[in-house]
Amino acid sequence: PAACRALLAHRRFQVLSMSVILVNGAALGAMTFERAVAVAGDFLHWVDYVCLVFFTFEVVAGILSFGRRPWRYFGNGWNVFDFVIVVASFMPGLRENVTILRMLRLARIVRIFRSLPSLRLILVAAGKALPKSAGVMALTGMVMYLWAMIGWIAFSDSDEEHFGSVGKALLNLFQLVAFDDMGNVMRDSMRHNMWTLPYYIVFILFGAFILVNIMIGVVLASMEE
Amino acid sequence: PAACRALLAHRRFQVLSMSVILVNGAALGAMTFERAVAVAGDFLHWVDYVCLVFFTFEVVAGILSFGRRPWRYFGNGWNVFDFVIVVASFMPGLRENVTILRMLRLARIVRIFRSLPSLRLILVAAGKALPKSAGVMALTGMVMYLWAMIGWIAFSDSDEEHFGSVGKALLNLFQLVAFDDMGNVMRDSMRHNMWTLPYYIVFILFGAFILVNIMIGVVLASMEE
Amino acid sequence: PAACRALLAHRRFQVLSMSVILVNGAALGAMTFERAVAVAGDFLHWVDYVCLVFFTFEVVAGILSFGRRPWRYFGNGWNVFDFVIVVASFMPGLRENVTILRMLRLARIVRIFRSLPSLRLILVAAGKALPKSAGVMALTGMVMYLWAMIGWIAFSDSDEEHFGSVGKALLNLFQLVAFDDMGNVMRDSMRHNMWTLPYYIVFILFGAFILVNIMIGVVLASMEE
Amino acid sequence: PAACRALLAHRRFQVLSMSVILVNGAALGAMTFERAVAVAGDFLHWVDYVCLVFFTFEVVAGILSFGRRPWRYFGNGWNVFDFVIVVASFMPGLRENVTILRMLRLARIVRIFRSLPSLRLILVAAGKALPKSAGVMALTGMVMYLWAMIGWIAFSDSDEEHFGSVGKALLNLFQLVAFDDMGNVMRDSMRHNMWTLPYYIVFILFGAFILVNIMIGVVLASMEE
Ligand code: NA
Ligand code: NA
Repeated sequence: PAACRALLAHRRFQVLSMSVILVNGAALGAMTFERAVAVAGDFLHWVDYVCLVFFTFEVVAGILSFGRRPWRYFGNGWNVFDFVIVVASFMPGLRENVTILRMLRLARIVRIFRSLPSLRLILVAAGKALPKSAGVMALTGMVMYLWAMIGWIAFSDSDEEHFGSVGKALLNLFQLVAFDDMGNVMRDSMRHNMWTLPYYIVFILFGAFILVNIMIGVVLASMEE
Repeated sequence: PAACRALLAHRRFQVLSMSVILVNGAALGAMTFERAVAVAGDFLHWVDYVCLVFFTFEVVAGILSFGRRPWRYFGNGWNVFDFVIVVASFMPGLRENVTILRMLRLARIVRIFRSLPSLRLILVAAGKALPKSAGVMALTGMVMYLWAMIGWIAFSDSDEEHFGSVGKALLNLFQLVAFDDMGNVMRDSMRHNMWTLPYYIVFILFGAFILVNIMIGVVLASMEE
Repeated sequence: PAACRALLAHRRFQVLSMSVILVNGAALGAMTFERAVAVAGDFLHWVDYVCLVFFTFEVVAGILSFGRRPWRYFGNGWNVFDFVIVVASFMPGLRENVTILRMLRLARIVRIFRSLPSLRLILVAAGKALPKSAGVMALTGMVMYLWAMIGWIAFSDSDEEHFGSVGKALLNLFQLVAFDDMGNVMRDSMRHNMWTLPYYIVFILFGAFILVNIMIGVVLASMEE
Repeated sequence: PAACRALLAHRRFQVLSMSVILVNGAALGAMTFERAVAVAGDFLHWVDYVCLVFFTFEVVAGILSFGRRPWRYFGNGWNVFDFVIVVASFMPGLRENVTILRMLRLARIVRIFRSLPSLRLILVAAGKALPKSAGVMALTGMVMYLWAMIGWIAFSDSDEEHFGSVGKALLNLFQLVAFDDMGNVMRDSMRHNMWTLPYYIVFILFGAFILVNIMIGVVLASMEE
């Protein structure tokens, strides 16, 4: 157990463990290219299998490192995650289903996030700014939904393509906010109904513009704290 | 009256009231999809009707909560808004017109903004940054208008598609500022008239660039206060 | 002279003067739409003429306000600008040339910038941030030029469409920096030559990314001052 | 040697040196336009040759300025760079290969970065913000890779065009993050498989949104230091 503990805590072993995950991720990505599978499919599967052996070894060493109290290993959520993935990878019933097999392979790469110590700090910092941004987002969503409904009421008859449902109208407004193909959306809509021009301009000016101001306000308010 | 007041002020009733608005909004949105109407049109109308009954109950309870002085209910703008919408929803003359009926339904969703306490704080913060941004906006608009007029004078003969009117020229410039399909706009214009290239580049460099600097200046100036 | 001075300094006259410029600008814009000219061309020209009469009156009143020393009127650059425009508008030789006539009309709208007192403050603030941004811009331009030259050397033979000249290569890189139609540019280029993918990715990562960092650095450095 | 040192340190000589590099860069750029080569190809080559002569003179003067210890000239990396380029430009074997010749010409323009004193300051400032941004970038890359793999598992059968490989799926997600042709990507994908809509929306909301918050967090954290 002490040897296992020392091994798992060793810096070089952790770098090796992280490298194995990255190599496994690259191999899984390569498996999605048909040409790569045709040329080196056997090799990629062999790499994936070697990585699985390594993960299995890591789980076994982790359990052994707790000596006579192996159940303590399962006190850590990541350890449970590792154990389930490794055990499921060897279950005969699951390996036959292609989608489940792929999900299991992918789950092994998710373990990379365990190895990132700075990740927690970043998520904590992001969590602080989240509530205010979420409020702004919810407000934006409601304003866009209302404006899309108005667009549907006014233009669904004359311009079925852009305003046929509230979903289409929302996508239009989202494109305008994101400046995505905005020029063509406006030109196309105007060909159907001239009144879409003031509809869009009001949205850009009184919608997007005020939101930018709100965003600046949120940032400034966050900085004051 | 005391019971009504207690009910309306109760936390759970307010959560229920907000939920009813959100459900009503979702139902109205679903009504815009032809397929949803074909499959579950009756159900959606029934949901809308139940929500209307709930809003009517809320208005009646609100008036009753003022006891012997029901006119005080109308001292609050939102209350007047609620009352007008509910009464109009039952008026026979209005219900026949599809557009008015839809506007009334939509107006009931607008009540969600009443329930957002943080909204006022956000709007106040945005209002502070507004005047300076509005000045920058007006300046931007004037510069773009002048440059679009120059584009029309110079290119309306050779490139009717992009510079046929000051409106088309303005849309071009707005696309350039927003980096929206900029590459294709520039390539298309250059096919008509090579001199549009310096015209666009001068605009991007001396226009958009200076505006970014001005925006940074506005943010920095806002922060100093 | 005293009456003229009082008139020109009066708040209401200044508001009127600014309104006349805005009305004139709207009329000139409307003249660029063929339909508006067909329907109300005479009216628009009449509006333009009335505005010219008002501007002429303003210049005459300005000169008169200096009493016995009318030459002092020309000590202000804006006054010289006004005088030249008004005089040129009545010169028979110039009025015949459509382009000159249009430029003169447009020049009258430029006078709006005289009336904006806050404009000077904004330009001063923008001027402070300009030198650092200009340095970043020059650096960006040089890096993009070098990378475009490398793209031309490597791909001009296999992909004439995107890398036929340093100009085309520069436009591609600019589209990538601005996320403008980036997906299609990358897909099209890769169809011609697979090696454009690493070329573009290196540019985005080591180019755009470092520039964002530099921009943040410039903003932070500006704030410290 | 003293005369050489004085010459190289003279302000006017440095301005001349920088101008020669800029002129040479402009000439090389012009050489990439077929029309310019057809009209003024000989002139452009002559300009390039004169610039090469000037660079050679600079290198010789640099070596001479160290008097009896010419090897000290090579103690500066930029000097070695200059020397190698100039010598290689006269090597008969290299001049025949068009690509090498073009790379050598381009390398002479890279010398412009030597002349920019403020460049070092900017790079130092950018370097400070780099580690945190690099961490955010790595995290973003991993999340996008995982989400692209999930997209490939779920949609590669029904929508080969957008999810045929992890590379195509990644390009889609990158377009969404950059708001590049987002509307069309979403519309096209939904025609193949309706479930791509929640897939994309989850990515935009829980992906891009959290990243913006993280970015703000990084900027705020950088400012506190
Ligand atoms: Na676009
Ligand atoms: Na875009």
